[in-house]
Amino acid sequence: MQIAMVDDKILPLDGLDAVYLDRGLYFGDGVYEVLRSYEGKIFALQEHLERFSRSMAAIEISGVKIEQIRKRVTEAFETAGFANARIYFHITRGSAPREHKWAADLKPNFFLTVNELTDDAGSKNKGISVSTHPDWRWKRCDIKSLNLLANVLARQDAAKKGCDEAILVDEAGLITEGAGSAFFAIFGKRLQTAAITANILPSVTRKFVIQASKNIGLEVVEKSLTPQQASSADELFIGVTTKDIVPVVSFDGKSISGGRPGRYTKMLIDEFRLFTI
Amino acid sequence: MQIAMVDDKILPLDGLDAVYLDRGLYFGDGVYEVLRSYEGKIFALQEHLERFSRSMAAIEISGVKIEQIRKRVTEAFETAGFANARIYFHITRGSAPREHKWAADLKPNFFLTVNELTDDAGSKNKGISVSTHPDWRWKRCDIKSLNLLANVLARQDAAKKGCDEAILVDEAGLITEGAGSAFFAIFGKRLQTAAITANILPSVTRKFVIQASKNIGLEVVEKSLTPQQASSADELFIGVTTKDIVPVVSFDGKSISGGRPGRYTKMLIDEFRLFTI
Repeated sequence: MQIAMVDDKILPLDGLDAVYLDRGLYFGDGVYEVLRSYEGKIFALQEHLERFSRSMAAIEISGVKIEQIRKRVTEAFETAGFANARIYFHITRGSAPREHKWAADLKPNFFLTVNELTDDAGSKNKGISVSTHPDWRWKRCDIKSLNLLANVLARQDAAKKGCDEAILVDEAGLITEGAGSAFFAIFGKRLQTAAITANILPSVTRKFVIQASKNIGLEVVEKSLTPQQASSADELFIGVTTKDIVPVVSFDGKSISGGRPGRYTKMLIDEFRLFTI
Repeated sequence: MQIAMVDDKILPLDGLDAVYLDRGLYFGDGVYEVLRSYEGKIFALQEHLERFSRSMAAIEISGVKIEQIRKRVTEAFETAGFANARIYFHITRGSAPREHKWAADLKPNFFLTVNELTDDAGSKNKGISVSTHPDWRWKRCDIKSLNLLANVLARQDAAKKGCDEAILVDEAGLITEGAGSAFFAIFGKRLQTAAITANILPSVTRKFVIQASKNIGLEVVEKSLTPQQASSADELFIGVTTKDIVPVVSFDGKSISGGRPGRYTKMLIDEFRLFTI
């Protein structure tokens, strides 16, 4: 008899709930998005849905209508009723016996959660510490996939060092991005961040940070930084959907902008806020 | 209220089955093994358990006793009652609200399946076709993790080309391994396969193939091949747990060893069989 075992319990494979046979679990064969709302309004829903659509296309998950995803997100958000909500959702290719190759008729699985977001004023006001970690991720980080073990290990390494985020450094010695964020440096009146390549996630927050930078008169340079360059920046910050801009005040143990959020970073936080209201 | 949504169904997040919050699903945060039995006897259980132990240690999943895994595998195998069985199992870090960083007190989730294995005499007798694909995997392929989307996409690409396996080629233009197999070439009386590095899975089958090669008097060279070198080999084959040695008779459309399994490959299949009885 074909069987399954969940912890110590033996079960017939046939009767098993399909969630156990999710290709998302077997292979990380799925893509996801994280959204947030500000005071009752979901931010940049269209941008996130467009990226989600590109991620699905890149791994050839088809037959999912973006309008249906939009409807689900909106319905879930309204049902939860949080003014400031964190919305996570993913789609996997579906449930099937484990085989790398997939059948054309699989039905994708959708999963979503909504939590209340308690704004972390502390990290915004005081800034965070970051540490570097080798970028072990795969070569298609433009796809927002469920293959995130490299990000998990990097973030845990940062936590062990007392840091809040890991900044990933590729084999060429260049910073790609954070384990769960985009990474920015300010030198004088210049904002610098890595260009969008096949191995950088097209961050939605990044797009708004660049707009905000232009609005306050910063020159924007899309060029990768080395850790040495980053540690000599006037200001550093990360961009992440759930917290928008978070100042970085320590980089691999080196104090940045006097250990306090920098002047332009604070201006960008204010400028970004205007997009969200 | 914190909520979840499974397909179109909205549920309270609190009452949700823990399997939906598995870090294996959120991040691919887990490791796995595949075993097989030959005529009622599990092959190389010890080697697979040792590798599983190394994989768990590499991603810092702790508190799981290998003797308990051995007991579960054996119990499940005996319950299923297949002489030729395929046993798959994984352990994930546990279930928790989605956050990259993990808590020390998580309880790992264990999952296993046993299927009957119907030996594919066709592919062994006739050989298979393979095609190359860029190696998009992460940089720690020595860890047998659930981050397998690159393997999935490569295997699907091969299937579209009418091939049974994808042979992965890294950025330096060298073959690393197959999407789900180790890769071997024979030139004269020399067996050649990539050396075990940080980005090659220490294949259990590979170890036995090397022993079998020595037994039949082949010289063994651990050195990466280019696709061009592979396509000029006298013989090619892949090594995979569920099928041990499978001859390759076409490489990127080029016929290998006259389109039939090669002489030494057939000798290795016979030699390998001796290990399994």
